[in-house]
Amino acid sequence: MEQAGQKPEQPAPQAIHHELRTAENSAGYVLAKLQSMKDANPNLKLLDVGSGSGTISVTFAKFISDGHVTGVDLNPEILPRARAVAEQAGVKNVEFQQGDVFKLPFPDAHFDVTHCHQVLTHLKAPWDALREMLRVTKPGGIVAAREGDLETECVWPELPGLLSFHKFISNMMKLAGGSPIGGRQLLSWALKAGASRDHVKLSYGTWWYDTADDKKTWSQAMVDRIKAGRLREGGLKARLVTENDLDEMVKAWEEWAVNEEASLAMMHGEIIIQK
Amino acid sequence: MEQAGQKPEQPAPQAIHHELRTAENSAGYVLAKLQSMKDANPNLKLLDVGSGSGTISVTFAKFISDGHVTGVDLNPEILPRARAVAEQAGVKNVEFQQGDVFKLPFPDAHFDVTHCHQVLTHLKAPWDALREMLRVTKPGGIVAAREGDLETECVWPELPGLLSFHKFISNMMKLAGGSPIGGRQLLSWALKAGASRDHVKLSYGTWWYDTADDKKTWSQAMVDRIKAGRLREGGLKARLVTENDLDEMVKAWEEWAVNEEASLAMMHGEIIIQK
Repeated sequence: MEQAGQKPEQPAPQAIHHELRTAENSAGYVLAKLQSMKDANPNLKLLDVGSGSGTISVTFAKFISDGHVTGVDLNPEILPRARAVAEQAGVKNVEFQQGDVFKLPFPDAHFDVTHCHQVLTHLKAPWDALREMLRVTKPGGIVAAREGDLETECVWPELPGLLSFHKFISNMMKLAGGSPIGGRQLLSWALKAGASRDHVKLSYGTWWYDTADDKKTWSQAMVDRIKAGRLREGGLKARLVTENDLDEMVKAWEEWAVNEEASLAMMHGEIIIQK
Repeated sequence: MEQAGQKPEQPAPQAIHHELRTAENSAGYVLAKLQSMKDANPNLKLLDVGSGSGTISVTFAKFISDGHVTGVDLNPEILPRARAVAEQAGVKNVEFQQGDVFKLPFPDAHFDVTHCHQVLTHLKAPWDALREMLRVTKPGGIVAAREGDLETECVWPELPGLLSFHKFISNMMKLAGGSPIGGRQLLSWALKAGASRDHVKLSYGTWWYDTADDKKTWSQAMVDRIKAGRLREGGLKARLVTENDLDEMVKAWEEWAVNEEASLAMMHGEIIIQK
């Protein structure tokens, strides 16, 4: 297990780039709606599915300061880290528990807002996850999801090691049953989950890294993932990459980080389903 | 010539989707900066390079109502249409003239803002164009550019006719000496044009179509381009496509437009160079 031996005060190496995520930078598409819901009812109950290290859950909890946030993650070993993130931020109105998106441990119509970020794209049946998220959401509430679309990722310069890394990540996602083009499929998944078209609002958003500091942080996170942990082990085991390939990827990320014309960007699909 | 016989009151078929463009939807990344420049000097002089049908120039002119906008386009036959767009909008502080981005008909340091949209990505030496745009810009002024990155385009569902259309457009761009990955290269072009890194602000933006009305408009514009004009003629002449391929593309766009789970999105690179 990747979190084994990890102290909750510190993120696991492969989670560092996850911990850059906040409600502001990763769920901006839903904040205006959340604000209007909060104005009508300050005591909102929000569920964050696949909450991982909890940085998004904690910033949601700050945003709905008179409300309450529950974060669930399939992996119980990440929960201490999420609780540490909340404690370090001094946020009290958030709790974390183990839970499976296909069988959420909550009654029907329990939350005003049910949210996930970069979860559905890793699943074999994302529409079943959305159906379950809709089940625990109150009528009048919303389900909000944002999923990357890896095939829109653009990197410059196109160093061979970065292009192989992209292909490697994409193949790893497919191997695990996910979709590297989840972003563009979100709307179709919502319809398959039973939402009617006029209840789904679709948008697309981006993130990018181009400043020296951002590139250093991102590059280091990728290098850490390539050098150790699940990505490396899984890739070697599945023979998707060799040690030499991985070494070339590390060098490419290090070269990219210090190149002043370098940038990296990706598009995400975003949906808000009105229940 | 594609505009031959076209009345200026009506857009050319292949220009319909260009005329959806406004400063708000196509130059949003620069509006905050433009507002602060306008607050300091209401009489801004803005040059819009590759102004085409003029819809962006005209909306810029509305935005800097006490300033003045000059639109230039290489193709003199588009100028009457741009003037008609301005007249229909009742905008007086804009003028259009013929001009080549590599040899702009203006003295050094003449404009406060020099802008282009979807121009550089079609050029063989985009850095030379940016250098010329910098030349006509005043010290303290800005050069702003936004260029699509066609390879980030994502379409759903992935109908074979749409995938062939994407490949066809990409190949046509390459054939004409342009780059289908212009968005991600913008920063490198700015540096090659002589800008220093700390004077360039990079961002990435998106557009997308997913509502029934938007999809109908976009689909119709693509169908018109496939059925007649430069794209069709050029593609057949270069043997990049057959008549059958083109027929399949038309059918795919028509099918896409009425599919409720369909969407189309693309990412753009955006730079503001401070001179």
